[in-house]
Amino acid sequence: MNILAIDTSTSLASIAIVVDGRTAAEATFSTDRTLSARLIPEIEHLLAFAGVTIADMDLFAASIGPGSFTGVRGGVATVQGLALAGGKACVGFSSLTLLAMNFPLAAHPVCALLDARKSEVYAALFDCSTAVPTPVMADCVLPPENLLDRLRETTVNPVVFCGDGAVRYHDLIAERLGAQAVFAPFPHNIARATNGALLALHTFRNGEELTPAQLLPVYLRASEAEINRIASM
Amino acid sequence: MNILAIDTSTSLASIAIVVDGRTAAEATFSTDRTLSARLIPEIEHLLAFAGVTIADMDLFAASIGPGSFTGVRGGVATVQGLALAGGKACVGFSSLTLLAMNFPLAAHPVCALLDARKSEVYAALFDCSTAVPTPVMADCVLPPENLLDRLRETTVNPVVFCGDGAVRYHDLIAERLGAQAVFAPFPHNIARATNGALLALHTFRNGEELTPAQLLPVYLRASEAEINRIASM
Repeated sequence: MNILAIDTSTSLASIAIVVDGRTAAEATFSTDRTLSARLIPEIEHLLAFAGVTIADMDLFAASIGPGSFTGVRGGVATVQGLALAGGKACVGFSSLTLLAMNFPLAAHPVCALLDARKSEVYAALFDCSTAVPTPVMADCVLPPENLLDRLRETTVNPVVFCGDGAVRYHDLIAERLGAQAVFAPFPHNIARATNGALLALHTFRNGEELTPAQLLPVYLRASEAEINRIASM
Repeated sequence: MNILAIDTSTSLASIAIVVDGRTAAEATFSTDRTLSARLIPEIEHLLAFAGVTIADMDLFAASIGPGSFTGVRGGVATVQGLALAGGKACVGFSSLTLLAMNFPLAAHPVCALLDARKSEVYAALFDCSTAVPTPVMADCVLPPENLLDRLRETTVNPVVFCGDGAVRYHDLIAERLGAQAVFAPFPHNIARATNGALLALHTFRNGEELTPAQLLPVYLRASEAEINRIASM
């Protein structure tokens, strides 16, 4: 099975082309306000590297969040378009699960953290001892202090922290959890789309693929525009 | 510190640009006999994505093998050229260590395996419980049967197998080791250059950087040309 998977939920976008169950090409790059200009050209670039065309893809997968509103919308819309045009199925996956997949068979639970701005983080805790991480604490948005209080109460073992939220709140985490916190080496703070292809494959094999219209972002909190609208009512 | 790291030891090449200790861009792609045509253009492509130039790099790093003779030579030569031209230091790293770094904090030892052709594998065993893997069995080349005999005698815990050698000899490994063998999910069978940048950073901080002339491939066995020359003597 051939899969095109993308993650555009953070300031680093990732694209993977999987051909016959093997990674043929993967790129992860800074988007820096240029995602819309870079995403399609880079998909074309990677398809050429992999020696395939968009018509060869059987399944399209995108991160549905949490993360950057605009980024997630752009990624989901791109995959919806590709799947609709080609009459193919699509699949969504969590950006936090994707991040946790950097730690296959890890000895400790993995806390994936993305900076949600406004002094909050998107967070989830996973058992990574299996091929696909098992959620221990579901995706949520909360102040990092509250997350750390919760982890301190419920977890005895060390916890591995990864993601841009772990970088942003490194000192706070170290101060609150001490030796209970293990920080990801920097290569493992970024999400890679090939792991999204693996998640998509599992979802597809479970018969849970979606039509393009069913692929929807999960924001966890209201957008800035919605908050402003409610505040002005 | 800014680092350009490349791995060209297998049929998938990987390039990473690390800026100020964070991954700015990474690409991993099939080379398929086109490495020499693809490597420099892709380095330029990633530098542009990262918003930096080659002159901004402080350190150049390449995989020195084991792996494809031609691939390793091409990667080492490229890094030698870049470092020499810019008056910068360079660092080499093992392609097998790079592969094992896909399993940070893994609960089990990790056996990195590359297909060495001629019914042999390049192999090494690592303890991945630290940021940089600790070798338990050093890089070597041997028939997979011999490797499995050795692992069966010395290892009690499950062993994680990764790399294109683990894919090629999947059935043999499963037959000989049974439940003692755990196979990497497919995203973790490919090496990613960002991990090479982390290895390079550790080497540099230990004061073990090299001049371009000192960066040399490690082949583990004689090349086809050398074998033929000796056989004809």
